Amino acid sequence: MGQIPLVTLTTDFGTADGYVGTMRGVILNIVPNAQLIDISHQISPQDVRQAAYVLYAAYAFFSPHTVHLVVVDPGVGSVRRSIALCTPVGCFVGPDNGVFSYVMAREPIEELVELTNPRYQLPVVGHTFHGRDVFAPAAAHLAAGVPITAFGPPIDDPITLPSPRLEITPGNAVGEVLHIDHFGNVITSIGLLAWCEEKDILLLDPVFKGIENGKRERLRFEARGATVAAAGREIAGVHRTFAQVECGQVLALVGSSGHLEIAVREGSAIQRLGLQLGDVVSLSV
Amino acid sequence: MGQIPLVTLTTDFGTADGYVGTMRGVILNIVPNAQLIDISHQISPQDVRQAAYVLYAAYAFFSPHTVHLVVVDPGVGSVRRSIALCTPVGCFVGPDNGVFSYVMAREPIEELVELTNPRYQLPVVGHTFHGRDVFAPAAAHLAAGVPITAFGPPIDDPITLPSPRLEITPGNAVGEVLHIDHFGNVITSIGLLAWCEEKDILLLDPVFKGIENGKRERLRFEARGATVAAAGREIAGVHRTFAQVECGQVLALVGSSGHLEIAVREGSAIQRLGLQLGDVVSLSV
Amino acid sequence: MGQIPLVTLTTDFGTADGYVGTMRGVILNIVPNAQLIDISHQISPQDVRQAAYVLYAAYAFFSPHTVHLVVVDPGVGSVRRSIALCTPVGCFVGPDNGVFSYVMAREPIEELVELTNPRYQLPVVGHTFHGRDVFAPAAAHLAAGVPITAFGPPIDDPITLPSPRLEITPGNAVGEVLHIDHFGNVITSIGLLAWCEEKDILLLDPVFKGIENGKRERLRFEARGATVAAAGREIAGVHRTFAQVECGQVLALVGSSGHLEIAVREGSAIQRLGLQLGDVVSLSV
Repeated sequence: MGQIPLVTLTTDFGTADGYVGTMRGVILNIVPNAQLIDISHQISPQDVRQAAYVLYAAYAFFSPHTVHLVVVDPGVGSVRRSIALCTPVGCFVGPDNGVFSYVMAREPIEELVELTNPRYQLPVVGHTFHGRDVFAPAAAHLAAGVPITAFGPPIDDPITLPSPRLEITPGNAVGEVLHIDHFGNVITSIGLLAWCEEKDILLLDPVFKGIENGKRERLRFEARGATVAAAGREIAGVHRTFAQVECGQVLALVGSSGHLEIAVREGSAIQRLGLQLGDVVSLSV
Repeated sequence: MGQIPLVTLTTDFGTADGYVGTMRGVILNIVPNAQLIDISHQISPQDVRQAAYVLYAAYAFFSPHTVHLVVVDPGVGSVRRSIALCTPVGCFVGPDNGVFSYVMAREPIEELVELTNPRYQLPVVGHTFHGRDVFAPAAAHLAAGVPITAFGPPIDDPITLPSPRLEITPGNAVGEVLHIDHFGNVITSIGLLAWCEEKDILLLDPVFKGIENGKRERLRFEARGATVAAAGREIAGVHRTFAQVECGQVLALVGSSGHLEIAVREGSAIQRLGLQLGDVVSLSV
Repeated sequence: MGQIPLVTLTTDFGTADGYVGTMRGVILNIVPNAQLIDISHQISPQDVRQAAYVLYAAYAFFSPHTVHLVVVDPGVGSVRRSIALCTPVGCFVGPDNGVFSYVMAREPIEELVELTNPRYQLPVVGHTFHGRDVFAPAAAHLAAGVPITAFGPPIDDPITLPSPRLEITPGNAVGEVLHIDHFGNVITSIGLLAWCEEKDILLLDPVFKGIENGKRERLRFEARGATVAAAGREIAGVHRTFAQVECGQVLALVGSSGHLEIAVREGSAIQRLGLQLGDVVSLSV
C-alpha cells in the first residue's frame, strides 16, 4: 500500500510512569515505521465517558486508515471483552465498555470482532495491563494490514453508554455538560450545530442518534435571538467566536466539535460559573 | 528533496483534550511522513509572551528546514491576521500577535506573508480553532514544500511584543524575570551571555535588539566579581554550573539559553526567593 | 541495516519548557528518520532512583536496537562521568549516577564507555544542559550505527544505587515501596513474581541480584494463602487481577512489571493507605 501506518493513543495512564511508552515500544516492535499520535493520556482514571467524548471530538480529523487505540479499562482482568471495529473513517481497538459509543452513534460499523486470537497478543498476557499485552499488539497488527476478521469472531452486541441527555421540542433543546476542557470551556451535548450560509442562522442536527433515547430532530433557529440557560444564569445569543464579546465576558458559542459551548473570552467558564459534568444546559430559540 | 518534513508544535492547549492530537491528524493527512515534535503545550492560556520565550529557547536547535507551528491565540476569530515567515534557520506559522517577536529579534526575515489562500486551509474553517483549521494545514503544506509566497500576500508590519526590560550602562545591566522553568530556575532577560576562552570572563551581548527599546551594547566582565541582585537579595558571582556550589545554595549562572539565571542547586529558586515574572534583576560587574 | 533508529527519552524536565523538544531537535539533526518515544518526563526533579525504576519497567518491551536516553542529572557540570552502555536488549545513554542500576542488575553489559569524544557532542558544550549538548547527540549517533567504542574509553566501575530492600527468608519476603504510579498503585521491591501453570501458585524470583545486598533466593508459594502487610494493615491473598475484588477494595496483586503491588480496585491505594516511598512491605507465605 505504501501508506504509513498510523495509530492514535487515548488512555487514562498519565505520562509519568512509562506505561504509554511501553505500549509504543510494543507497537513499534510490530510496525517499526508507524506514526504514533497521542490524543490524550489524561482521561480521568476509569472515566469511560470522558474518553468516549475526547475520541469523538478528534477521530474525524485523521486519515481513514488510522487505527485508534483506546485504553480506559476499569474492567481489566474481568470478563469484559476486548474488541476491534472498523468504520469507513477509521478502525478502533479497546475494551468493550462503551468507549466507542459516540463514534458508533455517528459512523456505520463495517466489522466488529472480539480480540481472541493469541497470535496477535504478546506471548504472555498478564491480568492487569491489557493495553500493553492485548490492545497495543492488536492495534499494531491492524495498522500493519492484518484483516480485522483475523483477530477473532464477529460480535454484534457491543456495550454502549447511555446517551447524553438531549431532549428536543419545538423551539427548545435540553442537554447536559459533556466535557470541560483545559481552558475551562464547558462543552454540552447539544450538537452538531452548523452555521447556514444565511447570516445568523444555526442548524441543530443532533448526533447521538445511535444510542439509547437518541433523537434526530432538526432545529433551525436564529442564533442572535436564542437564549442559553445554565447554572441559574441566562446567556443571550449564540456567537460564532470569542472575539464577538469583550474580554472576561461569558458567552455561548458553537465550539470546534460542533457542540454548543459556554465560555469566557480569555478566561475560564468553569471557574466563573461552577458547572459540573452532567449539569443541565438548555437552549431556547 | 528526500528530506523528512519536520514540524514543531507549541501551544497553550494542554494535552488532556485531544486538541493537539487533532492538529497532528490534520498535519499527517497532508504530509504523512512528517516528524512532529512537541516544544510545549503547557504555555499558560493566552500567554503570548511565555510562548515567545519558550520558542526562542528551542528553535535554534532544529534543522533549518523545520516549520515551527505556534498556536497561542487569544484573538482567534477576531481581525488578527494569520501569518507565516521564513528565516535562514527555519519557518514559523501562527497568529500575528507577537509570538515570533523574539525570533525576529535574532533572525533576519526572508519572507513574511498573511495566510489567506483557502487552498491551504481545511475546507470548512471554524471560528474558534484556527490551530486545526488554518495553522496546522499551513504548517503541513509549508513543510511539504509549498513555497511560502503561495499562502498569501507579503506583509511588512508584523505585531511585535514590547522588548523585555534590559538597560545596560557601564558596569551594570538591569533586566527582568522572563521565564520560570519546571525546576524553579528563574531565567532573566539578561542575555546572551557567553564565556570567553579566558577563565572567568563573560561577554554580555544582548539579543533583543530588534524590538522596541532594544539595546545592543556589549559588556565584558569578570564573572567571579559580579553581583546579581534580585528579590532584595545579593548573589555573589556568576557561575558556570550548579556543581560549583553546595546543594541547596542559591546561585547565579549562565543558563542553557545563554541568559542569566538564578537557581538553587538541586532545589527551586522560585520557591526560595518568591520572584515573579517581570520582577527586576540586576547584574553589577 | 534498513532498520529505523529508535530512541526513548526519560527525563525530569517536565514538558512545559521546551527542553525535551530541544533534545529531540538535536537528535533529529543527526538521525532525521529516528522514532523518538517518550518514556517519562515527569520523574521528580533529580530523583535518580525513580528514573531507574521507570526505565526498568519499560525497556524490555522495546526492540534490542533501541537506544534509551535518560537525563536525570543532579550532578551536571560536576566531575560525574557521562556514559553509554550496550546490553543484548538495548543500549543506554546518560549520566553515571546509578540511573541504569536496575537494568544492569538484570542484563549483562556488553560494552560500557565514558562519553569523551567531542566528535559526538554539540560543537559548544555548556555546563548546565548535557541532555542537549552531550547525551542527545550521543544517543543519536549510537542509534545511527556509530559503534559504542567510538564514543570514549571503556570503564568498568559504573556508579550503582543501593539495592532496594529485599530480605527473603523461608516463608517470608520483606521489601519496600519502590514506586507509586499515576493511579495510586503502590509498587514494591518484591519481584519478579510469576504465576505457575498450576492454579494459585506464585514463584518469587528477585531481580535485584546485581546490586549491593542483592539476593536471588526463589520462593514458591500459594497465592491465596499469603498475607501482605503494609502501613499497619494486613491484606489477605495475592490476586491475579483487580476484577477479583469489589470496587473500592484494597488488594495485593502481581503488577504489570512482575512486582508485588498494593492497589484499590477503581481507586487509589496511596490515598487509602498513605504509604510513602521506602516504607516496608512484607509478604508472608
